[in-house]
Amino acid sequence: MPSSKDTSSLDIFFKPDSVAVIGSMSSPFFGAHVVAFNMKKFGFKGQIYLVNPKYKSVGDFKVYPSVRNIPGEVDLAVIVTSAEVVPGLIEECGEKRVRAVVVVADGFAERGSEGASLQRRLVEAARKWGTRVLGPNTIGVLDAWSGSVTNPYHIDYESVRRGSVAFVAQTGIIGPQAMSFHDMRLPLSKVCDLGNKCDVDESDMLEYLGEDPDTKVIAMHLEDVKDGRRFIRVARKVASEKPVIVLKPGKTEESAKAMQSHTGAMMGNYAVYESAMKQAGVLLVDTFQELLSIPKVFAYQPLPRGNRLGIVTITGGGGVMAIDAASRMGLRLAKLSSESIERLVSIHPSMASHPVDVGPAFPVSGDPRKLYRGSWDVVLNDKNVDAALITLYATRWFPHKEIAEEISRLRETGKPVAVWAYGPRIDDVINFYKALEEAEVPFFFTIEEAVKALALLYRYTHIREKLRRHVAS
Amino acid sequence: MPSSKDTSSLDIFFKPDSVAVIGSMSSPFFGAHVVAFNMKKFGFKGQIYLVNPKYKSVGDFKVYPSVRNIPGEVDLAVIVTSAEVVPGLIEECGEKRVRAVVVVADGFAERGSEGASLQRRLVEAARKWGTRVLGPNTIGVLDAWSGSVTNPYHIDYESVRRGSVAFVAQTGIIGPQAMSFHDMRLPLSKVCDLGNKCDVDESDMLEYLGEDPDTKVIAMHLEDVKDGRRFIRVARKVASEKPVIVLKPGKTEESAKAMQSHTGAMMGNYAVYESAMKQAGVLLVDTFQELLSIPKVFAYQPLPRGNRLGIVTITGGGGVMAIDAASRMGLRLAKLSSESIERLVSIHPSMASHPVDVGPAFPVSGDPRKLYRGSWDVVLNDKNVDAALITLYATRWFPHKEIAEEISRLRETGKPVAVWAYGPRIDDVINFYKALEEAEVPFFFTIEEAVKALALLYRYTHIREKLRRHVAS
Repeated sequence: MPSSKDTSSLDIFFKPDSVAVIGSMSSPFFGAHVVAFNMKKFGFKGQIYLVNPKYKSVGDFKVYPSVRNIPGEVDLAVIVTSAEVVPGLIEECGEKRVRAVVVVADGFAERGSEGASLQRRLVEAARKWGTRVLGPNTIGVLDAWSGSVTNPYHIDYESVRRGSVAFVAQTGIIGPQAMSFHDMRLPLSKVCDLGNKCDVDESDMLEYLGEDPDTKVIAMHLEDVKDGRRFIRVARKVASEKPVIVLKPGKTEESAKAMQSHTGAMMGNYAVYESAMKQAGVLLVDTFQELLSIPKVFAYQPLPRGNRLGIVTITGGGGVMAIDAASRMGLRLAKLSSESIERLVSIHPSMASHPVDVGPAFPVSGDPRKLYRGSWDVVLNDKNVDAALITLYATRWFPHKEIAEEISRLRETGKPVAVWAYGPRIDDVINFYKALEEAEVPFFFTIEEAVKALALLYRYTHIREKLRRHVAS
Repeated sequence: MPSSKDTSSLDIFFKPDSVAVIGSMSSPFFGAHVVAFNMKKFGFKGQIYLVNPKYKSVGDFKVYPSVRNIPGEVDLAVIVTSAEVVPGLIEECGEKRVRAVVVVADGFAERGSEGASLQRRLVEAARKWGTRVLGPNTIGVLDAWSGSVTNPYHIDYESVRRGSVAFVAQTGIIGPQAMSFHDMRLPLSKVCDLGNKCDVDESDMLEYLGEDPDTKVIAMHLEDVKDGRRFIRVARKVASEKPVIVLKPGKTEESAKAMQSHTGAMMGNYAVYESAMKQAGVLLVDTFQELLSIPKVFAYQPLPRGNRLGIVTITGGGGVMAIDAASRMGLRLAKLSSESIERLVSIHPSMASHPVDVGPAFPVSGDPRKLYRGSWDVVLNDKNVDAALITLYATRWFPHKEIAEEISRLRETGKPVAVWAYGPRIDDVINFYKALEEAEVPFFFTIEEAVKALALLYRYTHIREKLRRHVAS
């Protein structure tokens, strides 16, 4: 078996030339055949072989009785069976010189001592043949660029947006069967569920993604860390080049115990993890929602040069809440220059203070877009502003796309922007969301998340500088 | 002027028999005529008069040159003009014996010393005639039961759900022109924007809502508190009968300064507010989103008898996160009885621990609804469980309405439930959201908010007990 530090071999999970999918085909929503359908749907260009002795064909696919019968080479196998037969199948894959296996099957270390012993047999078989294993108890991977998707569940959309954010999690909820990646227009490079981590673990994956040219931002949900020292070493190296954003559940004894029956994760001390990760330059978030929504800001927006926040808001009350969030998260309200205030007042006399509240002028302004555009322009171009929060009113009476593109162009100032929008119709808010994301303007469902995203951008400028100085010295 | 403690007079803002709307009619989206259209749309049954000397009629409405020319009595006037003319209009309303006025117009204390002096003139005129004033700088009120809605902006829906939650805010964002109350199926009694509070203030409104038979839950956004001692006294009294949930922005000097240009609110010390409010039995929340989403739980769900949380989850990872949230917020994971565990295992062998993870059994179960129903039933009926979090997968392949109704029936156990759902399509999640709310099952967009709602329910049981003991002794 190659050393688990040979992470270049992980490429085979994401960009295989040929894939064998072994296992159950009895449900319309779940199984080996669903993996094959998903791969087709997502535009995977390599060979796909189905394996199950009980079938001759499924859909357009010929079905082979065993991997041994597959005529060509197989880079990657995906196993969607019951747990008992997995060690034997790994043996067969070894004989066939399959380089990597995703074990979707569950019922291993997460399910008591019997499962744990089965997992040991699985690992022994893989070691014998030098086969890399992801899982067991995983939905595997999605590569937005190659279209390789090992997910065994029906996926309710046909594509995801290609981009530079990689998500790694110790839960299947990260997969496209569960997350509305398409609707959210999330710019994805790779998604990976680590499952029980019997071989490939979080440090392998982090090291690999650190080198991955498709990936600019790495977001990880980690229930446990198998080798803390190695993870910290790898994180420190990767974080000097790319932001590493981590959600670490299991803060209490009760949740740590629950992790064990979820992925077989062993308890660690949360406070120790937290302090070590911060030391290593990891950006910690507090909720799964933050883990999903914050990384895109790093993909889309420039890093700020300082922590002075500009706020242009359509709700004065929201402006106040944004300041609260900003100061809690290490940003401060920018002091606008007197020239900026003059320019704002010349647009409308009600806009004489910061946060810039366009609300009062809105109903009396003949052209709300001019009001918007003018105030954004003044605030983003003020030399005392490093980043900006924009709050918007979402309604179908407004041209979402044009507004999104105008905000997008503010990037020319070299300063990052985040948006919170609300409105009387959820559909309109969602459509505005999509338009903003299409234009690479990060949208958030709450003020606090938008501000936190900007705060983490700022925090990362310090982390990167510190880590690079450390490397250079 | 009646004492500001005579809060029964506030009824006139919410249930007037006749309303005069005075002011601008030049924009299709904003103005006096829009107030009249909104009232019609929301089913207001009283008399509506429009007032503007420049018009003879607008739509189906005759327009009067002045309130003096209105033939019948006028209970409530709504003023949507520029600030300068407001004191004079208040005089006219006084002469007409109008009992209460909503001053929508802005440009008063929130806009420097000139505005402040105008506001003083407004107050003097109102005092002279004993007219109660809401505002200025407000969108006024919405009464879901009477259909009285003084909002000067176009409202993009025709009704809100009638219910028992009252929202009071010092920002117009709380209004139906901005919030998707209809889509959210929020069970509203009354909504009120306090604006600059030149007369009616937060204590008046709280005292009034405390007595209001339509209102069971009170949610308030307060930038400042005019009379701290009175508010605390009123809050303590009301909280012994109805939950009072407060968001208090202005935690920092910067945000307090911003409040001043928003509503003319004067700075106070946040820590002092916080501690006094907690003493008074107020439930504090941290974000506007929480202020919106948490109150409905009090309207729909029973109070728990203890803090032992049951969790039935379709994502094991989500179960772990829920425990983290629970312990942060004062709940603890229930220890299921051995009979419950036996019953769960008999449904599916993978469900042998708590949180109950239905995920592994989901794809292999012939009937996922039986799996759902069985596990909810076991957990909610376990004597060691006081409240339950249910996480769900939202897809159009599932009968949203039936699932919602099944969860709704769990209320027969006398224990509260909160739901978090996610899914591959935002539309499906939103439709599930609506179905759950229709069935009075509270839906949340994040695990943490769902858990916090249950935690506040539990906290309120203690508050109420303590306050009632205090009153009794």
